[in-house]
Amino acid sequence: MSETAQEFDVLILGGGSAGYGAALRAVQHGLTVGLIEKSKLGGTCLHWGCIPTKAYLHAAEVADEARHASSFGVNATVESVDMGKVRDYKDGIVAGKFKGLSGLLKMRKVNVIEGEGKLVSQNEIEVDGTRYQGKHIILASGSYSKTFGLTVSDRIMTSTEALQLDYLPKSAIVLGGGVIGSEFASLWNSFGVDVTIIEGLDHLVPNEDPSIIKILEREFKKKKIKSNLGTFFDKVEETDSGVKVTLADGKEFEAEVCLVAVGRGPNTEGLGFEEQGITLDRGFVITDERLHTGVGNIYAIGDIVPGVQLAHRGYQQGIFVAEEIAGNNPLIVEDVNIPKVTFTEPEIMSVGYSQPKAEEKFGKENIEVTEYNLAGNGKSSILGTGGVIKMVRQKDGAIIGVHGIGKRISEQIGEAQLIVNWEAYPEDVAAFIHAHPTQNESLGEAAMALNGHPLHG
Amino acid sequence: MSETAQEFDVLILGGGSAGYGAALRAVQHGLTVGLIEKSKLGGTCLHWGCIPTKAYLHAAEVADEARHASSFGVNATVESVDMGKVRDYKDGIVAGKFKGLSGLLKMRKVNVIEGEGKLVSQNEIEVDGTRYQGKHIILASGSYSKTFGLTVSDRIMTSTEALQLDYLPKSAIVLGGGVIGSEFASLWNSFGVDVTIIEGLDHLVPNEDPSIIKILEREFKKKKIKSNLGTFFDKVEETDSGVKVTLADGKEFEAEVCLVAVGRGPNTEGLGFEEQGITLDRGFVITDERLHTGVGNIYAIGDIVPGVQLAHRGYQQGIFVAEEIAGNNPLIVEDVNIPKVTFTEPEIMSVGYSQPKAEEKFGKENIEVTEYNLAGNGKSSILGTGGVIKMVRQKDGAIIGVHGIGKRISEQIGEAQLIVNWEAYPEDVAAFIHAHPTQNESLGEAAMALNGHPLHG
Repeated sequence: MSETAQEFDVLILGGGSAGYGAALRAVQHGLTVGLIEKSKLGGTCLHWGCIPTKAYLHAAEVADEARHASSFGVNATVESVDMGKVRDYKDGIVAGKFKGLSGLLKMRKVNVIEGEGKLVSQNEIEVDGTRYQGKHIILASGSYSKTFGLTVSDRIMTSTEALQLDYLPKSAIVLGGGVIGSEFASLWNSFGVDVTIIEGLDHLVPNEDPSIIKILEREFKKKKIKSNLGTFFDKVEETDSGVKVTLADGKEFEAEVCLVAVGRGPNTEGLGFEEQGITLDRGFVITDERLHTGVGNIYAIGDIVPGVQLAHRGYQQGIFVAEEIAGNNPLIVEDVNIPKVTFTEPEIMSVGYSQPKAEEKFGKENIEVTEYNLAGNGKSSILGTGGVIKMVRQKDGAIIGVHGIGKRISEQIGEAQLIVNWEAYPEDVAAFIHAHPTQNESLGEAAMALNGHPLHG
Repeated sequence: MSETAQEFDVLILGGGSAGYGAALRAVQHGLTVGLIEKSKLGGTCLHWGCIPTKAYLHAAEVADEARHASSFGVNATVESVDMGKVRDYKDGIVAGKFKGLSGLLKMRKVNVIEGEGKLVSQNEIEVDGTRYQGKHIILASGSYSKTFGLTVSDRIMTSTEALQLDYLPKSAIVLGGGVIGSEFASLWNSFGVDVTIIEGLDHLVPNEDPSIIKILEREFKKKKIKSNLGTFFDKVEETDSGVKVTLADGKEFEAEVCLVAVGRGPNTEGLGFEEQGITLDRGFVITDERLHTGVGNIYAIGDIVPGVQLAHRGYQQGIFVAEEIAGNNPLIVEDVNIPKVTFTEPEIMSVGYSQPKAEEKFGKENIEVTEYNLAGNGKSSILGTGGVIKMVRQKDGAIIGVHGIGKRISEQIGEAQLIVNWEAYPEDVAAFIHAHPTQNESLGEAAMALNGHPLHG
């Protein structure tokens, strides 16, 4: 018989971005919080996702930049990329952030409970034989890399293992051309690895706007990243020298290693959710639009809730539910208006409707679209990058989508998301001055063009 | 006796950012436009200002990044910086933009008139003996580098000459610690030049917020850029080996070259402005808030109008006056709400009121301020940069200032200017999701902190 240790206003299962976001906001409202984590505070994003991959991608950018330095008049040579040192750099960033987060949770008096939790009643989670009670419970158990039954080995790996390598394979097959697969393809390519992407759908990063996808595919081709699109893989086998991937059409590919980047599944099995009456759909927790599970005072947030699996969506849902519990009736941010960034080279940013999704939702005749070519943008020329900013508006209405591709374009997501979330009209944006010479000017130019008055270009 | 060649709806004196901005917008409204330029279309910004300096600053960034590549696991060596090649790279960018601009003006049917123009009546400008009439006249004659009577030579130069050097001096004295002086100090330092800044005021970039200035000064010191602040220079002399600068207090500095970056004066002398009754103040053209000179249908825009001398202010004033002439009653953008970027390393961005200016305007008790340290921002850690985002709000009111310093922080100006120009409240900005992991998150964090709910940190 387990004993009840402690009761909290809010008891949270999972200390990743979603869970700790909820915890931090809840304590700010004077609520007592228990935060259960079986592995490491910060979760996937901090330890095996966003942060470490972006560190690798920055090292890749540094390598690219040094390799091409002579075109800027700087005579430099890249002797080698030392993956042990890249890993150390990455580990240093992660360790620093982990220390910061742990300290912050402690300072803010969040009660961190180490161990694996299981929902055992509508207001109790059991951890290693101890029951904790929560007036409100928030499920935030996160996600894992799917492997479609493949056994992870030295040669067949998910992003988690790939981030631990201390060597560069000569060649790699990347199964899956979504965000994670494309990011790894990009960084390995920058490090000199011969990369082939296998994607079952017809395109890389298939959720992006077609104009953006077209440019990414063209740029990847230029960089000699190979892609085989439109056919799913059938099997992956280890060979004497590496791996062999056979597609559904019989085509075979061989390489030294294989990265499996076929998506992330929800961590919900064996956690007692269904036993308490919570509805799961293919493992995901079904909630209402205010993230309530329909059972007791139980909410669900982050990657276990159907939708885009992004750390910042997790945070925001965490904050949302904490505000909801505190009785503050927070604003719902629709999934379509969540900003998205892909840190490939070139980078991609997008928020709101793509052109096809806007046409589907509002009718082709009711939307207007502009594409501003970064060839007209001074700072982009200085950086040596092409690309586009694409804006979608409702006819005579607000801007409902902003999409961009180009070197360093990720940071434009700031103004882009504000435009879309505030339902700005192109004329609103065009009226203001964008600083020269920045890549940011391209948003002003796109807004002017959409308003019928392009300045440059 | 000169003959009258042609009459235009709008006749513009000067083809820099301000003048060509006005021209392009005016033709979009169906107006005929004559654009007079004595040198090169695109003016200071394109040929001797923003674009070439930012190209040099990017080359400097590339050199820095390659030099520090090993801290990211990339073993690289910088053998040399070849200023001839840096100049070629810069010249290539400028030539490309110049070609684009010239083609655009031609395509849009702007009549470009080559030669030096002089206002000879309230609706006429004479160019090389030919009089051109304008129903409306726009003065956009731009600015020049001030030299305080110093003679430009091989060793004493303004930014124009410095951008033509094909060698790196061993040492340089930079007279003036404003934006231009600080940017040159930064790039020369990155290229290995021993730099000393002489600034008569007590601080570098004195128009920025004190928190930002403090960090820039500290970072410059770390990079071994020397500064002598608070004493004006008295004289600059050439010596056998270089230059000697003597300050008002007798202190002497020697170096191989001296860059004079003591500000830019308006190009208004001998252009006939005063003869037509236009009011000048220390050379600047005085206008009303709608940029009308009070004489006939004559407007003035750009660097000859008192205020911040920035290319994007010039464009915007050009667009503004074109809209005004077209009868569209455009919105006035106050100078304080014009975004500003300084491309030193670290970069600076700012828009709206600094803390002291806000305190002066609204009273100390009526404003609130927050500083978000980039140490808490994941992407900044990945880039290896510190810095801050500082936000100023009116108590219970809108955000009236956003300031930032850090590597690559310039692009945050996009969201920052939208926040300030739209008079957003911190709670408005905090409600939206900022994408992870970007530097842009730091704006969301600052807004949350100013709203009383910091998430991280």
